[in-house]
Amino acid sequence: MTEEIYDVVVLGGGAGGVPAAVRAAQLGGTVAVIEQENFGGLCMNKGCIPFGHMMTASNIVGNLSLGRDMGLHVSEVSLDYEILVRRQNELIDFMRKGVVGTLVKNGIDRIEGRGRISGKGRMDVNGNTIAFKNLILASGGEWIMPDFPNSDLDDVVNTNYLLEAKILPKRVLLFGRIPWLVEIAQFLNRFGCQVILATQDKSLLSDESKTISSRLRKTLKSSGIDIKHDAEIINLAKNNGGLQVEIKSKNGIEEVFVEKIITAERKAALKGLGLENLQIDKGADFIKVNEKMETKINGVYAIGDITEEQSRHYSHLASEEGVIAAENAMGGKAELDQRTCTRILYSQPEVACVGLTAKEAKAAGYDVYVGAAPLSMNPYGMILSENEGIIEVVAEKKYGEILGVHFIGTSASEMAGQAVLAIRMEMTLEELAKTSFPHPTLSESLAEAAREALGVPIYLP
Amino acid sequence: MTEEIYDVVVLGGGAGGVPAAVRAAQLGGTVAVIEQENFGGLCMNKGCIPFGHMMTASNIVGNLSLGRDMGLHVSEVSLDYEILVRRQNELIDFMRKGVVGTLVKNGIDRIEGRGRISGKGRMDVNGNTIAFKNLILASGGEWIMPDFPNSDLDDVVNTNYLLEAKILPKRVLLFGRIPWLVEIAQFLNRFGCQVILATQDKSLLSDESKTISSRLRKTLKSSGIDIKHDAEIINLAKNNGGLQVEIKSKNGIEEVFVEKIITAERKAALKGLGLENLQIDKGADFIKVNEKMETKINGVYAIGDITEEQSRHYSHLASEEGVIAAENAMGGKAELDQRTCTRILYSQPEVACVGLTAKEAKAAGYDVYVGAAPLSMNPYGMILSENEGIIEVVAEKKYGEILGVHFIGTSASEMAGQAVLAIRMEMTLEELAKTSFPHPTLSESLAEAAREALGVPIYLP
Repeated sequence: MTEEIYDVVVLGGGAGGVPAAVRAAQLGGTVAVIEQENFGGLCMNKGCIPFGHMMTASNIVGNLSLGRDMGLHVSEVSLDYEILVRRQNELIDFMRKGVVGTLVKNGIDRIEGRGRISGKGRMDVNGNTIAFKNLILASGGEWIMPDFPNSDLDDVVNTNYLLEAKILPKRVLLFGRIPWLVEIAQFLNRFGCQVILATQDKSLLSDESKTISSRLRKTLKSSGIDIKHDAEIINLAKNNGGLQVEIKSKNGIEEVFVEKIITAERKAALKGLGLENLQIDKGADFIKVNEKMETKINGVYAIGDITEEQSRHYSHLASEEGVIAAENAMGGKAELDQRTCTRILYSQPEVACVGLTAKEAKAAGYDVYVGAAPLSMNPYGMILSENEGIIEVVAEKKYGEILGVHFIGTSASEMAGQAVLAIRMEMTLEELAKTSFPHPTLSESLAEAAREALGVPIYLP
Repeated sequence: MTEEIYDVVVLGGGAGGVPAAVRAAQLGGTVAVIEQENFGGLCMNKGCIPFGHMMTASNIVGNLSLGRDMGLHVSEVSLDYEILVRRQNELIDFMRKGVVGTLVKNGIDRIEGRGRISGKGRMDVNGNTIAFKNLILASGGEWIMPDFPNSDLDDVVNTNYLLEAKILPKRVLLFGRIPWLVEIAQFLNRFGCQVILATQDKSLLSDESKTISSRLRKTLKSSGIDIKHDAEIINLAKNNGGLQVEIKSKNGIEEVFVEKIITAERKAALKGLGLENLQIDKGADFIKVNEKMETKINGVYAIGDITEEQSRHYSHLASEEGVIAAENAMGGKAELDQRTCTRILYSQPEVACVGLTAKEAKAAGYDVYVGAAPLSMNPYGMILSENEGIIEVVAEKKYGEILGVHFIGTSASEMAGQAVLAIRMEMTLEELAKTSFPHPTLSESLAEAAREALGVPIYLP
């Protein structure tokens, strides 16, 4: 009996692994994907989808205050959290079936279990050996126990807690530098929870432009979220069914009482993969790859959260990397475009940042133009009361090439696609400045920001 | 005393005239803009802005049914129309002041009154003569009395009626082929009015792709709007404080009773401009211009609604044309990109169509690819219950150049900017197919539609 040797084996059926498998199959490969838990991975099962779902509910409530200004009579709104969670779980279940259907349609073998590299071209799953010509490692990340005193107490939880809760907590501390916590802060705040949002960093979204982070901060603060910077938990104890937390921050040392501390730290999940059997560098925090998603071992690729620091754990990045790895595994020559991974937050206002900030561009040696158009001066923005919204454009001076675009405001996540296209197509400020977006839209401010950068805004004062 | 001769006089301070004046001033010209009514024109005062405002209120209410599915307990919503109109008027007032501020900042003379060309390089306003080297005609359109029996009855009104009403009518007939009526139909329907929407055309949005128009129709019908195609009003009479209408349509002849008939027909406003004094063609329904916005008379440009059939009365088109006319008037060489004027509707789902439909592309001699990705299969679309949403891409086969993109769904108006950029930058299907949009967004379906067109969708069944 001849052993089947797959052209491509994908370890992990998440946001990266699934498109990798499909693309390899489209290119004629025999493909298997190994998944130990749920197809769809963190993103679909415990990340983007359930939290995107929560934020949608949260934003519907947020829009009601605009509605009241417009003359809509609406009652105070309450949330039946069990219904929210049930709808979310039904959606996830439906999406998971969709993923399986996609794999089936593309003739991809699904192998359920934990895969471990056992040698060159070989992987062990459930005691069976799977042979492959190419391997795409896409097994994602794992939760980290946070690094503060008594962080192993029961009431110190990660974001999974919210996916299983029956009711929402009344008082929480969200602790960490993970932007995702901003969404959760706003969601909980909107449904009656007192929220402290504490980050070790000097500001929220400390890597993004000040324009964006300060406007986000202002909105969150005005809704009553207690934001602490330069924060550190220096003591933690159980107290009366909750937690007594001593927290040091810019404000000094304070003692707070909360029901839960929610954290969201993750890292690349490298243990147990058998990387040592292929001499893949296991000393690092994550697997290093080049722009073709190649590891140092011939025929072994890695994509997604396993190849990145947590600040770049984005499922759209994993998906893009998956397609690139698959094309290269099948003999192609694809490369990752590093410029346009959107950093995104489903808060209200939404945040979407594409490409370089002015600071990063300067550090990279560019002479830069920066232009910004506040959405409070955009006609549609005025209708929507986009008081904190803005679109900021960064371009280099020599050719006017656009290097970064940063959005805060309604539909930022959808507008971000414009920035992705502009940067990929190497569009110039001049070209963007002349682009006619439909009226009335917030997108019009993208062209106006480009004009502002060039010193010729049409509508801005 | 030497007479001042303006480099550029702009007749009309609306969506086209204002950017024209600003751009001419930016280029160093001495500029005057003549406005007989309100700066901001139809769009700001009686069009896009007030109706965009109404649709925003309407869409907030629309989103509550999704909210209820998500576990939000909300009361039935009612609208205090006076508050809505007051907020709208305050906004318009604020925007008007903004426009005036922009003109002042740019050193543009504002002349209030009705301008009439009195000869070469001369215009008469309020009995004074204004002299100019270049003229940009931007005086817009005017309402037309609709063409059916007894259309002069008081209760046959145009959309201005809604801007002055104290309360909303309970039963209306919206009559005409103007897409704008779709927005009004949905707005009135949502706030308790029984709506008949009747068009002389074979379908709603009869020039758009069937995919878009049939999905829009389905949504409107399911909300209880009575849609009539191939419609004609054959008899009309006053009856009991309302109107008795005999209407012939695909369904045969029916008699309906309504409080009001609302129409929205407009045409280029050519009368009284003194066009005969410059031998500008006044036989036509609108002023013909070339891609530089030049009329046949040297130094005389025309832009916006005065140069178009009503189906192309879009304020963003007028604005773009204004900038082009101004650049050319100041000695530049700008040309209108005819490919990317977005046709847009703020209904729920929103509609935004950019570029050619497949039918138009074929008629233009192209061999075409068409790809579509339903938003009901997009993860974010599933969260948002985008049952009728879809993104459709049309490209030509030789180079894969994208010719058209049509959106129906939430944020279609903002996603449209992606299509505008893709078409202007002459992006190919291959390039779009490889673009990584942030996850989870509806925009991801734009890339999937491109992949579908190429026969390699990743997620679609």
